Amino acid sequence: MKSGGEGALPEWKAHFAEFAPGLELRWWDDPALDPEAVDFALVWDPEPGRLARFPRLRAIFGSGAGVDLITADPGLPRHVPLVRCVPPEATQRMGEFVCWAVLSLSRDARRMAIAQARATWDYFEAPFAAAERTVGIMGLGAMGQRAAEMLRGLGVPVIGWSRTPKELPGIETFAGAAGRDAFLARSEVLVCLLPATPETQGILAAPLLARLPRGAGLVQVGRGAQQVLPDIIAALDEGQLSGAVIDVFEPEPLPPESLAWTHPRIIVTPHVGSLPNRRERARYVADCIARVTRGEALPNLYDPARGY
Amino acid sequence: MKSGGEGALPEWKAHFAEFAPGLELRWWDDPALDPEAVDFALVWDPEPGRLARFPRLRAIFGSGAGVDLITADPGLPRHVPLVRCVPPEATQRMGEFVCWAVLSLSRDARRMAIAQARATWDYFEAPFAAAERTVGIMGLGAMGQRAAEMLRGLGVPVIGWSRTPKELPGIETFAGAAGRDAFLARSEVLVCLLPATPETQGILAAPLLARLPRGAGLVQVGRGAQQVLPDIIAALDEGQLSGAVIDVFEPEPLPPESLAWTHPRIIVTPHVGSLPNRRERARYVADCIARVTRGEALPNLYDPARGY
Ligand SMILES: NC(=O)c1ccc[n+]([C@@H]2O[C@H](COP(=O)([O-])OP(=O)(O)OC[C@H]3O[C@@H](n4cnc5c(N)ncnc54)[C@H](OP(=O)(O)O)[C@@H]3O)[C@@H](O)[C@H]2O)c1
Ligand SMILES: NC(=O)c1ccc[n+]([C@@H]2O[C@H](COP(=O)([O-])OP(=O)(O)OC[C@H]3O[C@@H](n4cnc5c(N)ncnc54)[C@H](OP(=O)(O)O)[C@@H]3O)[C@@H](O)[C@H]2O)c1
Repeated sequence: MKSGGEGALPEWKAHFAEFAPGLELRWWDDPALDPEAVDFALVWDPEPGRLARFPRLRAIFGSGAGVDLITADPGLPRHVPLVRCVPPEATQRMGEFVCWAVLSLSRDARRMAIAQARATWDYFEAPFAAAERTVGIMGLGAMGQRAAEMLRGLGVPVIGWSRTPKELPGIETFAGAAGRDAFLARSEVLVCLLPATPETQGILAAPLLARLPRGAGLVQVGRGAQQVLPDIIAALDEGQLSGAVIDVFEPEPLPPESLAWTHPRIIVTPHVGSLPNRRERARYVADCIARVTRGEALPNLYDPARGY
Repeated sequence: MKSGGEGALPEWKAHFAEFAPGLELRWWDDPALDPEAVDFALVWDPEPGRLARFPRLRAIFGSGAGVDLITADPGLPRHVPLVRCVPPEATQRMGEFVCWAVLSLSRDARRMAIAQARATWDYFEAPFAAAERTVGIMGLGAMGQRAAEMLRGLGVPVIGWSRTPKELPGIETFAGAAGRDAFLARSEVLVCLLPATPETQGILAAPLLARLPRGAGLVQVGRGAQQVLPDIIAALDEGQLSGAVIDVFEPEPLPPESLAWTHPRIIVTPHVGSLPNRRERARYVADCIARVTRGEALPNLYDPARGY
């Protein structure tokens, strides 16, 4: 177990005692650990080669919905099932974050935060309601679908884009390279919920941003490697984008000298989109382990062929 | 016409030209104005006694949904219909603001804004999803009902409180003094959307806050005179409240020395909850004037007997 640092171990133990009382929990760097005796690993960013040293691993549990920091390991034992952590609470929480971010853009919450920091009453009229702008969601997986549903619940028109075609109630969808530009042209607020793959690397850059309607908003909750931050800043300064909420960065933590921190049109959040809390993750992992024990199929498996 | 200052007159004229081409628009303090010739007034905070000087007024239009700054005038001609400004966009926008505020509390957006101002990566786990806490809405009028509906769309459980009993789909409701404490005991986030009346004056004070579950959140979008700010701050400092979003103050603008600006658990917004923009207000008022001309009933009338 390597997630949250060694200091988090007592909390993990308490949660697993509740959901999987028989399970023995050991810290990743425990010197007394016998690699032969390890059945399961729970990790976020394992050192390359380390997972291969557990010869009897039956499943690897990622600590979040994206497992790119695990699959980046060239020595990853690819025959072992790799489970993305997507407890029911996580999709709800991501939907809430996306709604918060879209509403923050439509209200210019960044401007209000700056005014509060200056103790200045800066009244301004919101130019439009969120429901008057179309939100385009890139990535219609577990996260993107729940976000779409919740935005619809707010009265916001939603369109979506994925690799393979999808039919979703109340949402117009586009797919693949062929559907991309038509989707972008309609996205007045663009939400990125794509996984980190070679195809999505650097996708949020000048050429894509130029396809959006002028003055579009951007919510980036995928992965930091998907964006070219200088291109986003240039688009904001030039007016092609009107505002951005960015939750993921490369590297993380975002260094103190990054221009994103001080930019008047960027809200920076510290990768809080939807990491489930430890209790939720322990319940989810305990449930998966029980399935393995009963010989049942595992949910949310990483597919090496697709790359996510 | 007195709304937005004389500088706003050209914008108002352009909007009214679109929606009521025959209408002649004159500035409130226009020295050439003949009071006898004025049919309608559009105002937010008229000087006491001024409205009484227009002898042939057929309707008074408030510039917002709350008309307390107009009814505060002891000389208000009470036989003239007073119309609250509630265009359809305004309830949607208030719903969006309330959802944004509730989500801001559940994410501790204030803490994230402070961290951004310090260029600090302050990762923390959200203790719960918004959908895991019950939101209690005080005031189930045009605004409160739409806010309730939109919160339900996010998966958030909602209860509500009003003066007279109400039946609303999916929302448990409480009414009057008899239902108040049971409602408060269940409100893990309290949203105030009450009008300013003698009964609601100072209602958000220590005795009421003490009835909430410990660690509750507060969203105040009613009117500033309803709150006792020092009591709210004391409840925050003592842990009875965990956070607050406050949009309305007494007086406004909130003075720079107010402790609310710098409080780490208060988000201050400058009365932006839902003032409709000028175009929306012009369309709404033009529509009302057309109704008067056709002898039809007016919507959203202030009722002097109820006081709102
Ligand atoms: N910020 C945070 O805290 C946070 C938390 C959780 C997740 N995330 C990010 O969100 C991502 C999505 O999570 P999820 O659980 O929804 O994943 P998922 O269920 O695997 O869904 C991924 C979606 O992206 C689409 N997609 C993948 N590659 C694509 C491409 N090249 N072009 C177009 N569409 C493509 C997929 O298309 P198909 O439907 O056709 O397969 C699918 O709709 C994660 O990988 C992670 O990066 C961030
Ligand atoms: N921050 C902003 O930008 C902003 C914008 C718009 C409005 N507002 C505020 O929101 C208020 C509500 O607007 P609205 O259009 O929804 O008004 P509304 O339609 O008149 O509704 C008022 C609601 O409050 C209830 N109420 C009134 N007095 C009460 C009392 N003493 N005890 C319990 N409930 C009481 C009413 O009960 P009944 O249903 O039984 O009559 C009704 O449900 C406005 O008056 C204004 O103060 C603020």
